[in-house]
This record gives sequence, C-alpha cells and structure tokens, in this order.
Amino acid sequence: MAHITLPDGLPGIRGPMAFRPETAKPLNELVDVLLRGPHSLTPGERELIATFVSARNECRYCQTIHGAIAAHHLGGNEDLVRHVKADPEHAAISEKLKSLLVIAGKTAESGGHVTDEDVARARELGATDLEIHDTVLIAAAFCMFNRYVDGLATWAPDDPDFYRQRAAIVAENGYSAATLPGAKK
Amino acid sequence: MAHITLPDGLPGIRGPMAFRPETAKPLNELVDVLLRGPHSLTPGERELIATFVSARNECRYCQTIHGAIAAHHLGGNEDLVRHVKADPEHAAISEKLKSLLVIAGKTAESGGHVTDEDVARARELGATDLEIHDTVLIAAAFCMFNRYVDGLATWAPDDPDFYRQRAAIVAENGYSAATLPGAKK
Repeated sequence: MAHITLPDGLPGIRGPMAFRPETAKPLNELVDVLLRGPHSLTPGERELIATFVSARNECRYCQTIHGAIAAHHLGGNEDLVRHVKADPEHAAISEKLKSLLVIAGKTAESGGHVTDEDVARARELGATDLEIHDTVLIAAAFCMFNRYVDGLATWAPDDPDFYRQRAAIVAENGYSAATLPGAKK
Repeated sequence: MAHITLPDGLPGIRGPMAFRPETAKPLNELVDVLLRGPHSLTPGERELIATFVSARNECRYCQTIHGAIAAHHLGGNEDLVRHVKADPEHAAISEKLKSLLVIAGKTAESGGHVTDEDVARARELGATDLEIHDTVLIAAAFCMFNRYVDGLATWAPDDPDFYRQRAAIVAENGYSAATLPGAKK
C-alpha cells in the first residue's frame, strides 16, 4: 500500500502525479523534452538510457514501463531491451550509445563518479556536448523519478501487457498528453 | 573544468541551464513549486530538506547555495543550517521536520528504504499527506540536481559571500526569474 492516500487505479508515478498536478506539469514537460524532443539520439536510444538507469536503481515500475516504451520505439524488440539492461557492452547498440550508458550508470551512482576518460571515450565515438549533457540529465532525472515512485511505495502492476499497452499510448501521444486529467488509463 | 563547453562565468547548475534552456524551464518551474509555492512547510523548512539531501549526496554547489537560501529565509541563521546538515535530530527544528528529514535521507539512499514506520512517525508528529509527498519529491529532485551539477563537473565558487548574495536574489525573485537570460549573475 502506498505511503499516502493516492487516487485509485493509477499505477506507478501516475498516482502521485494525479495527487499533485502542480509538480506533475513540469515533470512531464521535462521528460517530453528529454526523451521525445528533436534530437540526434533517437527516442528509442533515450528510452534505453532511462530504462538502464531505472534498472540499476531497481525501480520495477520505471524500468518496466520505460523498457516497454523503448521496445515500442525499437520495433517491438524486447530482447534488445533485456540485453541492454543486463549487459550493455555486448548488446546490439552503437558503440557511442554504450559509452553514453557508462556515463549514465556512473551519474546514477554519484555525479562525481563520471570521469574525464568516460567523457573522452564518448567524444571519440562521436558523442556531442548535447548528447553528453542530455545523457547526464536523463540519468539524473531517472534517479529522481525512481525515488519518487518507490519513496511513496506506489503500486506496480505485474501484467507485462499492461505496460505494453500503456507504452503504445505514451509513445504516440507523449508524456504530458498521456497523463492529463481524463486521459486514457 | 566542466565535461562539456558551458557559458563562461556561470557557477553550478546555471552553466548547464544556460546551455540547455529547454530543460532549464521545467527544472526551474519544478523547484519554484516545490520550494516556494504556497505550503504548510515554510520556504526555510523546504530549503533545509533540499540542503540536507544535497549534503548527504556531497554536492558542494547545491548544499552551499541552498544552505544560503535556507539561512536567508531563517533570518540569517547559518548555524542552524550547519546543525541540520550535521545532526538534524538535535537541531532546533520541529519534531515534525526531523521526521521528514529521516524520510528525505532514506529517499536519497533509495526510495525503497522509506518504511511504513518512518511515515507513521511523521504522521504522528502532524505531517500531512502533502508534506510527506513533497518531502519525498524534494529529496528525489535534489538527487537529480546534485547528479546534474556534479555529473557535468561544473564549477563551484569558494567564496561564501558569493552564495549569500545569490541566495538573496533567488529568495526575493524565485528560481525561474533569477535564471532568465539577462538576469543578474
């Protein structure tokens, strides 16, 4: 049971977002820019960073929903998402994305763990300043979202189909639109 | 030196915020609601939660600027801020705030560390659902801000007077207004 009284039937972050729409608004705007805005990294790649960090932080709801959104963007490739979570260095992703996942993982531990060498490797593999910036901020933001969801002990459904269906709605409409009052659950 | 090329002369989070105004906007809106919006916890109390978490995360820039803003709201009482960072259970703050700082500290470790007993204690001491929600989200948000600032290796000035002067500007104008292009540095 959640630590505070939340609206019925809304899983994960959506309960606290309905409870506190004043903070839900900038939170949704932030992920819409970071994960869906115009970018040299695809939405699928950015969702993989979010999923990877959420898995490291052991947040079941976030890693499952963002993993499902990543898979949706990647042509339904759920095996690739599982591989990235378990062993990113050997997954079928670009070398640049691998180097960004190292930066994301270290950011999640503590910002100070990111080294000049980590950044130099990413840059040699073609990462731009914007990609490095956004990788750090996506990782940092999911350290927030994961703690928000679990710090309030929110409910996470067990059924994988729930996440697949929700992923399609979010991928099509975006985070802000998908969580507006009256939006499809 | 920062890991990416940032505008000159802007310390801490303000460099990356100037580099990426699209994400700065929702980030500033989030802290304006959380730390300055209408609330049963004073701005000073909420800044103490932000400062406490930033100190636990060893983010020098965030703990110093938010400590200075907290002190500004608390009549210049820098000793109280130091005491809250070092030993909150014996600081001259309310028992309710002490119980919320326990929740904040555990959220910063990992959301799953917050227990039913932690929440029950806060509730017995008068904490409302909104106060518990916002404590978790302030703590979670500073786990993001701390990692954003340190994950990019931003510059943090040494001079305490820099933070005191900046604190007065932020306390008077708010986060969004104080970081707009052309705002006083």
